[in-house]
Amino acid sequence: MQKSVNNIFISPEKMKSEFVRILINNGFTDTKAEICADVFTVNSLEGVYSHGVNRFTRFVGNIRKGYVKPDAEPSMIKSSGSLEQWNGNLGPGPLNALFATERAMKLASENGIGLVAIGNTNHWMRGGTYGWHAARKGYAFIGWTNTEANMPAWGAKDFRIGNNPLVFAVPYGNEAIVLDFAMSQYSYGKLELYQTEGRPLPYPGGFNTRGELTTDPGEILLSRRALPVGYWKGSGLSLLLDILAAALSGGFSTSEISRLEAEYALSQVFIAINLKKLANSESIEKTIHNILQDITVSIPADTGTEIRYPGENIIKVREENKRKGIPVNKDIWRKIIEE
Amino acid sequence: MQKSVNNIFISPEKMKSEFVRILINNGFTDTKAEICADVFTVNSLEGVYSHGVNRFTRFVGNIRKGYVKPDAEPSMIKSSGSLEQWNGNLGPGPLNALFATERAMKLASENGIGLVAIGNTNHWMRGGTYGWHAARKGYAFIGWTNTEANMPAWGAKDFRIGNNPLVFAVPYGNEAIVLDFAMSQYSYGKLELYQTEGRPLPYPGGFNTRGELTTDPGEILLSRRALPVGYWKGSGLSLLLDILAAALSGGFSTSEISRLEAEYALSQVFIAINLKKLANSESIEKTIHNILQDITVSIPADTGTEIRYPGENIIKVREENKRKGIPVNKDIWRKIIEE
Repeated sequence: MQKSVNNIFISPEKMKSEFVRILINNGFTDTKAEICADVFTVNSLEGVYSHGVNRFTRFVGNIRKGYVKPDAEPSMIKSSGSLEQWNGNLGPGPLNALFATERAMKLASENGIGLVAIGNTNHWMRGGTYGWHAARKGYAFIGWTNTEANMPAWGAKDFRIGNNPLVFAVPYGNEAIVLDFAMSQYSYGKLELYQTEGRPLPYPGGFNTRGELTTDPGEILLSRRALPVGYWKGSGLSLLLDILAAALSGGFSTSEISRLEAEYALSQVFIAINLKKLANSESIEKTIHNILQDITVSIPADTGTEIRYPGENIIKVREENKRKGIPVNKDIWRKIIEE
Repeated sequence: MQKSVNNIFISPEKMKSEFVRILINNGFTDTKAEICADVFTVNSLEGVYSHGVNRFTRFVGNIRKGYVKPDAEPSMIKSSGSLEQWNGNLGPGPLNALFATERAMKLASENGIGLVAIGNTNHWMRGGTYGWHAARKGYAFIGWTNTEANMPAWGAKDFRIGNNPLVFAVPYGNEAIVLDFAMSQYSYGKLELYQTEGRPLPYPGGFNTRGELTTDPGEILLSRRALPVGYWKGSGLSLLLDILAAALSGGFSTSEISRLEAEYALSQVFIAINLKKLANSESIEKTIHNILQDITVSIPADTGTEIRYPGENIIKVREENKRKGIPVNKDIWRKIIEE
């Protein structure tokens, strides 16, 4: 979608200033608009357009509908040492998530590890944002969110589980290694993209209506049976992430969210680990370097296949988009500047 | 393998007493033999034969070869509040892992959450053991281990990543919900089983030598290209789990373990969360009940398919094996009683 003749190229500065303007017009303070606009801009700059510029108009719509409350701030429910529960009060998802990440880091700076669970919050856009944030400041990070039901449990036909993205991150030099993945093998957005382009999926991504695995995106969009990662394993992981998110935050589960009129009031978990407290803190960089080194000398299965680590491509895309501008579909950008 | 005319049925008491006898003969104290024998017996009782009775002889072999030191105890490397690093001193994997689980629970009982990383330890057998252990005492649990390289990274042909099992557990009544899964879609043991029985895998489990996904176990055993769960996603998760295990414990990475003459000196992470510290601790049981309820009313994709939650089948198998005895291959049992 981002490589198209219908694209224009927008500098990150221009994009961010448009976002800031619109957010302020929709009830954000200057400071909050600045932070939130930055998340949407960086997500776009780093190639996660689906949770950056392409989703901004929908985010603003959710503010207008009252699902996202621009002036709400998280309030503490309970603090128990390194474990805290917060109520997101339906504030903007990225702001609440950054807040929770910072709290978890604060707890970890004191006690080595911190867990912050936040309920009644909103879509965090791209989970990797919080992994990069914590890792850039020297923390290891594990975090996840639940979502509305958007996938059948293993063996089922109707949507009962969420794709519940899970993030793992560790610092690496000035950058980070960030794994950010949803429990569905392909998002519906991705399936639609392949369908539009008339291409099969590279690997089976769901079942057709006859219950057979297929690489045909149209068949999966028809059956609505997208594949959980690792078949039954990803289905189980989705369930456990939802149980933990709802139990630890005291907020809604996927099943409860799915009964609302829209996807809001999510539950999320943020764990930060303070690597500086470790006996081997000075040598962790080298440990990671050696592990990556070992992976990259793998024998490629096909000529030309690159063996990459999670987050590696982000760095490349970020540099390219900084140089050329962020590619945005003309119509999407027109809608934004008309906001 | 467990449903065969070559099986005999052994009571858990008989099995455990044989294990205790052999462990004492191999340098275990009475107490340690008791605990370790219990782990192997319960794993078998609960149907995880591959990491119970079927692996016991190999475990004893590793003691004789000096990879597992029966009298070694973990020693603390560093303590930082809720975060601790331990050296397993190559002690028996299940004993070290139970110790680390208990330590993490202790830290969590004080601070809400505890993380114990242990390096220089040994194979923990079945990861679920530690999930059940913590959850039965009211803690949520997240833990993982690295392994030697036994799978190619995504896009590669040679073994560079481990199948690094990951465990999530939460208490549920007197039982628990326990997800325990390796990063390979099928273990090599499972592939061999299907091959022996001349059956195709239910779902694609790897690539053949032509680089095509296949359900033929023989083709995968030939190519050695087992499939990571969720294709590139499980490959990335394996990498992050290894990085975290090695970095947090200060112990060996998959790449370092793979250079040893056998699989020992592993790195593991144990996280316990004290649910009693939560504001909603009284209603967590109900939260989980409602989530499970919602899954189980899913519309089955095929007639007769049951929608299950992780750990549900364990309870059924445990009851059956308690009633009928634990099924064990005659030859395997003969080798054990001759130890």
